[in-house]
Amino acid sequence: MASADQTATDHSVGLVEPQTFQFDEPLLLVCGRTLPGYQLVVETYGTLNADKSNALLICHALSGDHHAAGYHEGDARPGWWDQHIGPGKPIDTNHYYVVSLNNIGGCAGSTGPTSINAETGKPWGPDFPVVTVTDWVVTQARLADRLGIDRWAAVAGGSLGGMQALQWTIDFPDRVASALIIAASPKLSAQNIAFNEVARRAIMSDPDFHQGRYAEHAGVPHHGLMLARMLGHITYISDDMMRERFGRELREGKVNFGFDVEFQIESYLRHQGETFVDRFDANTYLLMTKALDYFDPAEPFGGDLGKALANVQARFLVVSFTSDWRFSPQRSREIVAALHQNRKPVSYAEIESPDGHDAFLLPHDRYEACLRSFLAQNQTAGRAH
Amino acid sequence: MASADQTATDHSVGLVEPQTFQFDEPLLLVCGRTLPGYQLVVETYGTLNADKSNALLICHALSGDHHAAGYHEGDARPGWWDQHIGPGKPIDTNHYYVVSLNNIGGCAGSTGPTSINAETGKPWGPDFPVVTVTDWVVTQARLADRLGIDRWAAVAGGSLGGMQALQWTIDFPDRVASALIIAASPKLSAQNIAFNEVARRAIMSDPDFHQGRYAEHAGVPHHGLMLARMLGHITYISDDMMRERFGRELREGKVNFGFDVEFQIESYLRHQGETFVDRFDANTYLLMTKALDYFDPAEPFGGDLGKALANVQARFLVVSFTSDWRFSPQRSREIVAALHQNRKPVSYAEIESPDGHDAFLLPHDRYEACLRSFLAQNQTAGRAH
Repeated sequence: MASADQTATDHSVGLVEPQTFQFDEPLLLVCGRTLPGYQLVVETYGTLNADKSNALLICHALSGDHHAAGYHEGDARPGWWDQHIGPGKPIDTNHYYVVSLNNIGGCAGSTGPTSINAETGKPWGPDFPVVTVTDWVVTQARLADRLGIDRWAAVAGGSLGGMQALQWTIDFPDRVASALIIAASPKLSAQNIAFNEVARRAIMSDPDFHQGRYAEHAGVPHHGLMLARMLGHITYISDDMMRERFGRELREGKVNFGFDVEFQIESYLRHQGETFVDRFDANTYLLMTKALDYFDPAEPFGGDLGKALANVQARFLVVSFTSDWRFSPQRSREIVAALHQNRKPVSYAEIESPDGHDAFLLPHDRYEACLRSFLAQNQTAGRAH
Repeated sequence: MASADQTATDHSVGLVEPQTFQFDEPLLLVCGRTLPGYQLVVETYGTLNADKSNALLICHALSGDHHAAGYHEGDARPGWWDQHIGPGKPIDTNHYYVVSLNNIGGCAGSTGPTSINAETGKPWGPDFPVVTVTDWVVTQARLADRLGIDRWAAVAGGSLGGMQALQWTIDFPDRVASALIIAASPKLSAQNIAFNEVARRAIMSDPDFHQGRYAEHAGVPHHGLMLARMLGHITYISDDMMRERFGRELREGKVNFGFDVEFQIESYLRHQGETFVDRFDANTYLLMTKALDYFDPAEPFGGDLGKALANVQARFLVVSFTSDWRFSPQRSREIVAALHQNRKPVSYAEIESPDGHDAFLLPHDRYEACLRSFLAQNQTAGRAH
């Protein structure tokens, strides 16, 4: 903890504790089902100012959660976006009151497949309803109500998190002053859906999946979830970065003409798969990939993203990374083009990076400078408002 | 069969029958193990000329086999490269005597995991030795000996087949007049290996795999092999082609908020997976992916492909396809550069195609014109020789 404490003194938000909010008002979901009530687990960093105008919402990606920054007691590693959130960091907690939550359907404390379904007294498991980005935005708006936040100074997220930020600007145009949409896409491509489908098949065809009722069988679909994560990781990092980090290096310096791990990349992927199984729920993985597949804010507007964005009021920062082939710069530029079409204020940064989709989580001077400069303008704009 | 017969009359080699060749001389493999004997199943199209100078060897890719052209009795679909092999076709059986075989380790009739191991009286299964591209080239050279062919007029292949053609020019420089290396790579990237590793994990973690002894359990690792094939297919076709063919189209015109097939791309991939399981052996799939991973003809030359190709005598045609992201044009250009470095004769064609890696199997005017023109020069060169 020494290093964590040191960081805490310098640029970390330090030790943090999640809070739980209970919502008893039923939630009608896009799928047509109603969740009778739910809870959200939330972390906040920084201080809400008197007029509650400095709140910044963080939306998490597929495997993320509420723990975006700082340390939990006893943990060696900080939250998933600690690189960018903290005092003096690009998302500066000296200025912003940062709110980060685990979405419903998740497995880190908010109501999801691992929660107990009050009607049956058993975990929801596969009976948990399919949730969408639109549903999450509604729950996040209710959380804002609870916190007394009428309007977010900013809503920010990478990947699936960026999709939530985009949906916010459409569904609640007067409640978002600015949106940071990073390494995202206005909708998935057929190839993106294909990768998700193979990951889902891997989980669902694992005999330990038991139609999603593995909790009742005291097991988990270990192999399936591991495969899903391994496959995901291939799409998170770039071919160049893989070449640079792993090349064709052999773990034991020579091939062994067998089917155990031989190349370093195999070892890396298996490690990623193994550690993921210990911390993530398979039913949640299925739900998150479906939320990705279904995301298409232009769909209610006849497929016209320009029309979907006609009434947004936010200032936008759209960021992409050159080596990101999961959501390539081309996909980010579709969002930018639709905003331009509506003469909406948007800054676009295409960051030169070898780190693929993962780049949105990693240190990068120019990327951080973009976040910093956009959010600094925001403070000025906020004061003038 | 009407359409097949019609094609047969026109540009098809018509009905074909495979032959089996038995080889009793033991084969010392690169892995250090010895195969006591083996058989190869072979098809030939066209007629071997008097001086046996018109023989063209076809090498198959990961899931291919000896049935490259024409029809088997009762089949509605022709061989896998029928588009390009036949009378008047780019690989013209009016001029060439085309030889196509199933490689050892395969599952279409040549000795492999589904063959009986004479020592045990049971199928080899997972005990079949790991085979490499180098081993295949040795068996193909022995087949040439058996057929009385001292020197191939050409050795041709796409993908893993192209790798065999390249290895031929290095291992038997005086036995290859020309080499057609299509949609191939001088070695796999870390990303390529990563995809193979996930496919292997999918097969090996299927409980029906039984450490590869599924034949003794009267089953097959259906789910694992299906996942491997689905994943493979994502890498065979381009993102653009997927968008064009499938987009985000829904099979039933609307989302159903469940985990059954919804998008057309899901339906396509599952179909590809299902049909593959019926025709392919899981242990063979493991062997073929390992042969891909291990392929690296530059490795014995300190990683210098230029040195590896210093003594080749063949004329080369190297073909790549712009949308192929499995083995991109960049990888083909590495082969071309190494040949240029040695002042070896090489024609390089980078074909504009939306069809991804699969393009090497598909109709394409310019691609076919390249094959045709290169092989026509070959006939002239052969006559002058």
